[in-house]
Amino acid sequence: MSPFVLDDRLERDSEFVTALGLCQLRLLKDSRWPWLMLVPQRAGKTEIFELTPLDQAMLTFEANLVAGALKQVTGAKKINVGALGNIVSQLHVHVVARHEGDPNWPGPIWGFGTAVPYDNDRKHAFLTALNEAIGS
Amino acid sequence: MSPFVLDDRLERDSEFVTALGLCQLRLLKDSRWPWLMLVPQRAGKTEIFELTPLDQAMLTFEANLVAGALKQVTGAKKINVGALGNIVSQLHVHVVARHEGDPNWPGPIWGFGTAVPYDNDRKHAFLTALNEAIGS
Repeated sequence: MSPFVLDDRLERDSEFVTALGLCQLRLLKDSRWPWLMLVPQRAGKTEIFELTPLDQAMLTFEANLVAGALKQVTGAKKINVGALGNIVSQLHVHVVARHEGDPNWPGPIWGFGTAVPYDNDRKHAFLTALNEAIGS
Repeated sequence: MSPFVLDDRLERDSEFVTALGLCQLRLLKDSRWPWLMLVPQRAGKTEIFELTPLDQAMLTFEANLVAGALKQVTGAKKINVGALGNIVSQLHVHVVARHEGDPNWPGPIWGFGTAVPYDNDRKHAFLTALNEAIGS
């Protein structure tokens, strides 16, 4: 079995937040939405149903843990969860906090416009609150 | 506890395919993509993390069962799975078969263009194959 190596584009477009049991939790480098990504640390997977049943259960647990924490921290109207992978095939799950009137609301965030970098203070405050809510 | 009632818009935009243990499986009335939807039959839920842990596990099982069957039946390059709910708040999960060069590829399907109705024969053939693959 080959070791897990994070896809180059996922690495470039996001930064490491914390390691959960199965997944790397990462923050997208785009401040337009509070936008997280879970990457199961399993090599060669592109679809959730290719994971073992135990890994599927862990991914569900971790995605819902993160989604609940993200809602708590942001006060979002809705959490959007998506596993698309049309561009980067390595399995990854987006967890995004949406607010009424945010960019492209109520449409999807994927493929919309251009990323806006974070201010470092704002990013630090957000990640501190998020990690506390996750309990990591 | 109030009984589950399907949201009016979900009912209008899709048709019933089969009942799984937790979810109604439904087909979107849009032939541009093979596009399914799972609706957990639980009243008052808008986020996956609001479901009980058992229901979360069942939703994962059913979504992955349907996603695998959809990939098998369509030969899709990628299955897109998403729970957005920015427009219809009743919890529902999209499972969509994507092919290179399909409408808006590699972007998301949500909010793109206008639905194209199915030809009845084509729809019947698709749902027959899908139900067989699901084993329902």
